[in-house]
Amino acid sequence: MSEPRGRSTQRHATATDVARLAGVSQSAVSRAFTPGASIARETRARVEDAARALGYRPNAIARSLTTRRSRIIGVAAAYLQNHFYPDVLEALSKGLQARGYHLLLFTPDAARDADPLLQEVLAWQVDALILASTTLSSALAGQCRAAGIPVLLFNRTSRHADVSSVTGENLRGGRLIAEFLVAGGHKRLAFIAGIENSSTSRDREAGFTGWLAEHGHAPPLREVGLYDFEAASAAARRLLARSDRPDAIFVANDHMATAVSEVARHEFGLRIPRDLSLVGFDDTGPARWPSFSLTSFAQPLHPMVDAAVAMVCEMIEDPAAPTRHQVVPGELVVRGSARIPPEGCVSRGDALVWRPVQETVV
Amino acid sequence: MSEPRGRSTQRHATATDVARLAGVSQSAVSRAFTPGASIARETRARVEDAARALGYRPNAIARSLTTRRSRIIGVAAAYLQNHFYPDVLEALSKGLQARGYHLLLFTPDAARDADPLLQEVLAWQVDALILASTTLSSALAGQCRAAGIPVLLFNRTSRHADVSSVTGENLRGGRLIAEFLVAGGHKRLAFIAGIENSSTSRDREAGFTGWLAEHGHAPPLREVGLYDFEAASAAARRLLARSDRPDAIFVANDHMATAVSEVARHEFGLRIPRDLSLVGFDDTGPARWPSFSLTSFAQPLHPMVDAAVAMVCEMIEDPAAPTRHQVVPGELVVRGSARIPPEGCVSRGDALVWRPVQETVV
Repeated sequence: MSEPRGRSTQRHATATDVARLAGVSQSAVSRAFTPGASIARETRARVEDAARALGYRPNAIARSLTTRRSRIIGVAAAYLQNHFYPDVLEALSKGLQARGYHLLLFTPDAARDADPLLQEVLAWQVDALILASTTLSSALAGQCRAAGIPVLLFNRTSRHADVSSVTGENLRGGRLIAEFLVAGGHKRLAFIAGIENSSTSRDREAGFTGWLAEHGHAPPLREVGLYDFEAASAAARRLLARSDRPDAIFVANDHMATAVSEVARHEFGLRIPRDLSLVGFDDTGPARWPSFSLTSFAQPLHPMVDAAVAMVCEMIEDPAAPTRHQVVPGELVVRGSARIPPEGCVSRGDALVWRPVQETVV
Repeated sequence: MSEPRGRSTQRHATATDVARLAGVSQSAVSRAFTPGASIARETRARVEDAARALGYRPNAIARSLTTRRSRIIGVAAAYLQNHFYPDVLEALSKGLQARGYHLLLFTPDAARDADPLLQEVLAWQVDALILASTTLSSALAGQCRAAGIPVLLFNRTSRHADVSSVTGENLRGGRLIAEFLVAGGHKRLAFIAGIENSSTSRDREAGFTGWLAEHGHAPPLREVGLYDFEAASAAARRLLARSDRPDAIFVANDHMATAVSEVARHEFGLRIPRDLSLVGFDDTGPARWPSFSLTSFAQPLHPMVDAAVAMVCEMIEDPAAPTRHQVVPGELVVRGSARIPPEGCVSRGDALVWRPVQETVV
């Protein structure tokens, strides 16, 4: 592997220099700096000593032109205000770092078309693309397929494109929450949607309203909170100012549910759960804080990220592998923000979770 | 610019093919795909049409070997649990994207030595390195300088290395908070530190204790919260269980202050601010939620990020530029979590901020 000149004026040491000083082959130098490559511990130590003495830095970019692997994975993540995504990003980054990959980060706007930005990502010859909280067009998905670049949707699915995904149990979670609130004796249910064309919001709502319809209940009141703190606060104000105010709200994620909790208690003087039950989705940080003590369907972050890391590595090894949709099971974690039905709560570690006596499976 | 073969089996279109179809020079094709390069609108449109028709993708990596600019900036960010950093990351990413740069993300552990990971980053021929909530050794700083790679510390300074930085007013903020709490009539002050060797925690504490000492007040009680929610909760429990319980706590950041607020109200049954005043630092999301209504010294995120983006771009243009330490001014934003002194509050937009009648400047 030859090393192009760097930006500073002195000549940089090359892999050949290092090999000569260490008394090993050039291929041994290359292996010493290739994540995951097999090399004897003693050889690696000699190469590292020589590299240090000469101020040699391997050039991952030049290497990528030889290996056709950049070891860079493009990650598009929007909506970092929601506690869930920074945690995802950190876990993804650590999981991929451990496998010798690094993340090239892109931050499209959550509500906007991410295609133009993703086009740019592709110029970096990324080994794969992970889209968290965003999706892509079928045209771009086709372009990635033609270029042999695996794409994985994280916490999203695509209606339009045949793309692999890792999600939580959005549909089952929505159904379970409907059943939980009905079992808790609530009569006037409401739903606050996130971004309406996101698969998470659609699937959670479909599960919620589907279960209610199948069991002869009226459809819930409905407002849209766009997965945004301010928009969710406004949605809560509209619902809570009604004369037929709901006695329970399923909010499509915890980030919005904390906003709804603040508005209900501090602006409307409601007691939770006595006057109003709230259930969220994600089970992120603030859900566990005593101020919120939010009942929430857990999306298990680390199992989801582990699944994503494993899947993306498999897809890089075999870009022709068929599309897969992995759904990581979650639990309805019961805390103090919603009335608790007389039956169905079970301890799970230090948490309480709810399961209906006989869950209807669709 | 020639295009190496991609991973898929068909031959990829080259810049030459695009130039031929568009009827323009190869240099025009290259300029059309170089962020910031000058090119006539009509020429660019013809190049883009031809590129689309041929399925041509520019290769940013091959380009970087020619231009000696990767247009990748390495960003190390730890501690994404703190609301402040995801917001920083998103703003940095958007600011740099707008200038044609992308972020290669690294997530070292906040409390650990980041050097080994940063060594890896350098292999990617990054144009610059931004370290948020982490710092680097003087050895690594020297290595970056020798390689001509600018380094910028964000929200940190280094005691050991001569590295440029952008920070908020940590020292002045700490001083102002001491004065604010004393003006509010508090008698038993306490400080909860973050990670003790971080410059933010050190400077905030130095300002706080320095002002108290200069004005003849007893040194505050002290505990360490490691910038961690659980550790801060434990620190609060130790302070609040004392017989000489403090009547005011300055917590080194808001992330920890929310933890302290939860413990004080929900475990010790204290009323805030009647029984206990709390002041944080950062003025991040939950500080504004009515449940916390936290008085906090604001680190103005967007001005800090704008300063960082401008500085890093200047440093890339002129790697020999002298080290600079930019301190972005902030304000003590007054909300409901601490007793309000009779004088010194002034309106500032829709916020209330506090300034002593005559601020002592050091």
